[in-house]
Amino acid sequence: MTYCLGLLMKEGIVFASDSRSNAGIDNITSVCKLRTYAVPDERVVVLLSAGNLATTQAVTALLGSGQGSGIAGQDINVCVNMFDAAQLVGDKLRAQVARDGTFVKPFGNPNATFIVGGQFKGERPRLFEVYSAGNFVEITGRRPFAQIGETKYGKPILDRAFATETSLDEAAKLALLSFDATIRSNLSVAAPVDLLRYRVDSLALDPVDSFALDGPYWSQLRHAFNEGLRDLVRAFDPPGPGQT
Amino acid sequence: MTYCLGLLMKEGIVFASDSRSNAGIDNITSVCKLRTYAVPDERVVVLLSAGNLATTQAVTALLGSGQGSGIAGQDINVCVNMFDAAQLVGDKLRAQVARDGTFVKPFGNPNATFIVGGQFKGERPRLFEVYSAGNFVEITGRRPFAQIGETKYGKPILDRAFATETSLDEAAKLALLSFDATIRSNLSVAAPVDLLRYRVDSLALDPVDSFALDGPYWSQLRHAFNEGLRDLVRAFDPPGPGQT
Repeated sequence: MTYCLGLLMKEGIVFASDSRSNAGIDNITSVCKLRTYAVPDERVVVLLSAGNLATTQAVTALLGSGQGSGIAGQDINVCVNMFDAAQLVGDKLRAQVARDGTFVKPFGNPNATFIVGGQFKGERPRLFEVYSAGNFVEITGRRPFAQIGETKYGKPILDRAFATETSLDEAAKLALLSFDATIRSNLSVAAPVDLLRYRVDSLALDPVDSFALDGPYWSQLRHAFNEGLRDLVRAFDPPGPGQT
Repeated sequence: MTYCLGLLMKEGIVFASDSRSNAGIDNITSVCKLRTYAVPDERVVVLLSAGNLATTQAVTALLGSGQGSGIAGQDINVCVNMFDAAQLVGDKLRAQVARDGTFVKPFGNPNATFIVGGQFKGERPRLFEVYSAGNFVEITGRRPFAQIGETKYGKPILDRAFATETSLDEAAKLALLSFDATIRSNLSVAAPVDLLRYRVDSLALDPVDSFALDGPYWSQLRHAFNEGLRDLVRAFDPPGPGQT
């Protein structure tokens, strides 16, 4: 599996992805599932990928080699807005699955999904989820995050604590806690977690931070959160007999 | 789907189940998935069920009508320990699926799963998870809870805050928070949640409490927990640039 997350808020977008790729349980490796395509002061596009690694690598490689070519349908720089960029990713995915699908299916699932987000000059930051079929939905403020891969374990904390008003720094913490919940329960999701904070209207890329489970920041956050959660639950009165 | 939970601790066992049964999304109803079979001062057996409602109702009805008959393989009172009781549930499940399976399969899945737990005099409290195949595993202290149905959304809070040392009252709160996380994300799981606290060596059944989402206790717990969780995350420093 995989777990990737995009959190859309007024302050910008947090992107995060795990690093595990596996074919069965005895063939695992560590890969980066976060790719960026940017032209400073003009546009920032970030891509997170889940699914068949050959498919996702082919899509991201073709997007990378096409960038700057000036050819419509090949060059992400020719896209005029984020909707265009999501459509290009969907088209590349369709083309790749059309090319490889029938050969791959006897061995496994050729499909993939993507989160595409960022900002074009003149637009607000936008976030899309691209399905295996190459179609896509835009994330809106009523449920302001996108997840692909193993989405369930990491969702409750986002439902409880994340909103469009959340700050970028708060969202970074929530993302790490969401990944921690997932990694505890799913062997196919593993650290390091690559995390990128994109600030609205910056039209520039900060470096991607890679968090190891036993790194100083994340290990302290996880430990303190577990302690704090237990204390929080302990502070409530239990339900009395017949109290419902 | 369904969500049922059994939490095994030194103080006893908490059993909890949701109430939704559905055939598709336009045919839903409310049912009780918690059944008890007890002989005071001698044994307490609690059964939670998930899966095909016709199958689970047949199994629980046959266990109910057989109780007291004195016939081995029919009467749960003839079981001498909790392992026996789990085996009887598995056997009844197998018999029911053997009877109905071929007829049901063209229309849907005939399978079911159960959580079986409680205490027999002379034994410690024990908890089992009975699979669709009728075989079963016993829950142990290293991962002291059993879940059936929609298990993922409700698991992170248990992983973080539940242990065999947890008190019955703490476990009741954690169970309600685990159900809240699940109900937020899965339409096939719904309140009221039936919850039973069994205290070690009591060999007696307290009444089952039914918690409505908008009931005074649960609504207050949910609200206060969300607030507290947001405050807890806010209290941590965010990761600085390059801090991993």
